[in-house]
Amino acid sequence: MTSAVVSKLLPADVQQASQRIAGYIHRTPILTSSRLNDLVGVELHFKCENFQRSGAFKMRGATNALLQLSEEQRKTGAVTHSSGNHGAALALAGSLSDVPVWVVVPENAPSFKRRAIERYGATLVNCGPTLEDRETVAQQVGAETGAVFVSPYNDERVVAGQGTAALEFIETVPDLDEVWVPVGGGGLASGCVVALQGSGVRVCGAEPELADDAYRSLASKTLQPALEPTTIADGLRTALGTITFGILNAYRLEIRLVSEVAIVAAQKLVYECLKIVVEPSSAVPLAALLDREHRHADGVSRVGVILTGGNLEFPGR
Amino acid sequence: MTSAVVSKLLPADVQQASQRIAGYIHRTPILTSSRLNDLVGVELHFKCENFQRSGAFKMRGATNALLQLSEEQRKTGAVTHSSGNHGAALALAGSLSDVPVWVVVPENAPSFKRRAIERYGATLVNCGPTLEDRETVAQQVGAETGAVFVSPYNDERVVAGQGTAALEFIETVPDLDEVWVPVGGGGLASGCVVALQGSGVRVCGAEPELADDAYRSLASKTLQPALEPTTIADGLRTALGTITFGILNAYRLEIRLVSEVAIVAAQKLVYECLKIVVEPSSAVPLAALLDREHRHADGVSRVGVILTGGNLEFPGR
Repeated sequence: MTSAVVSKLLPADVQQASQRIAGYIHRTPILTSSRLNDLVGVELHFKCENFQRSGAFKMRGATNALLQLSEEQRKTGAVTHSSGNHGAALALAGSLSDVPVWVVVPENAPSFKRRAIERYGATLVNCGPTLEDRETVAQQVGAETGAVFVSPYNDERVVAGQGTAALEFIETVPDLDEVWVPVGGGGLASGCVVALQGSGVRVCGAEPELADDAYRSLASKTLQPALEPTTIADGLRTALGTITFGILNAYRLEIRLVSEVAIVAAQKLVYECLKIVVEPSSAVPLAALLDREHRHADGVSRVGVILTGGNLEFPGR
Repeated sequence: MTSAVVSKLLPADVQQASQRIAGYIHRTPILTSSRLNDLVGVELHFKCENFQRSGAFKMRGATNALLQLSEEQRKTGAVTHSSGNHGAALALAGSLSDVPVWVVVPENAPSFKRRAIERYGATLVNCGPTLEDRETVAQQVGAETGAVFVSPYNDERVVAGQGTAALEFIETVPDLDEVWVPVGGGGLASGCVVALQGSGVRVCGAEPELADDAYRSLASKTLQPALEPTTIADGLRTALGTITFGILNAYRLEIRLVSEVAIVAAQKLVYECLKIVVEPSSAVPLAALLDREHRHADGVSRVGVILTGGNLEFPGR
């Protein structure tokens, strides 16, 4: 798992994915805020994947993967492991496309996320808290049921599906200079790189300092493991996979690191200026853009940011 | 102040307001949620005035009022008293239309709301916590500066402006059976009644049990004062005015009362299902719609809800 796989994905694959999943996903709105423009010093456009079905962009990749299963595979079903948005997305995509889905969930996952997976009609299977536990149980489920494993990010069908967010973005806001995304497993970043190839729009990544495996992997040109990341941005605690590392390494993706304090400050600004609910992971690119030490190069004036998900429990009172 | 004023507002006034303010406000998006539809048992459409400029529908009425000032009045300016969204809206409307604005703010108003009023360029004037304090200081400011008083709701220009939200709503979702709004001072409810006159769309109101002055006023057909309301829905702590009472009384607006627990439960559902930030006041109509004891009459299948504002401070961690 430490070497890059060379992906042959092309923009045409993302365009096909876009047509394939169109009836199953929302074309999400784009929001702007004059106050955020003033704070960052560029014109910002936020693509709101928190409004996507299942509450996250993960719906795109999960749907694109399930719709490419064979007739036989559609009957036996699909399995994944996830403590978060990919599990819910695969559950909903399965329910909408009539494919049975099993989601292996660590016992310590929030009950809020577990309930969503069950509400979307998947079979929830408990496992221990480690990645090894998850993988073992997912393999067992696959062996027992015949279900195909669908990785949260290390799968070309998933990568192509996530790239449709970038495709829609430039269709709606045609003169973007850059599109910023948070980097966890690298599925969204890779999909954007593929989708925007030849478009002149640059993809930029941001990652928490406390989960900097992609930054280290790209700096060393060798896939590095995640070292028990503790960042508040729980969606970004995963490491790159061989496929996503291969794509991002070939692209020489530039990644900016941000502190935990900067992530919460950016999440607060999204809440107060855009009036929307986003997960801490979604706020990571804005945190990087707000950092005055990393001011933009001249010529960058219109910047897109993908807000990746909004599955949060109401804080209550 | 206990008798109704007969308003001569017509749907054409709302249409004119809509054209007048078009360049100054956002046409706000409408969101839906299949989960909320399932919970309520009708097709719900949410008009998101939390995304309106200044973060609330109040921008509509404030703009419509300022744009009708005389040349002379535009130079001397406008004054209001507000601890909340009307003050911020009048401040921003003044800044956009080049009218000086003074906002009288009680000393105990949240610093978050004070900062917004100042950021939009109005002059903030402090006063004591009571309604009497506010009115006295606003009169003083008016006497000293010549500024015209713009009421948050008891002003036909403001009522006509708020009604533009309903006009946009039925233009976008043409087959609505009902439009639900929270009732505070009654400006939005009155504007909707005027805007939807003759359209076949019914206006329905909802109010907190702990701020039930409009309910009592309409039941007794006499304008009742607000009795130191303590509801969490701080935007609804005001009483109806003579103009809004006159309109709502003539319409025989039906108002449903909801508990504090129901308001918070509805706010939580908006947060978790729609992924947006709304003030407790905005959740009051959904709280009424979720109440199983008040199930809908047959024939009601498509219901609009105006989410009135989203000016909340990030709860932090």
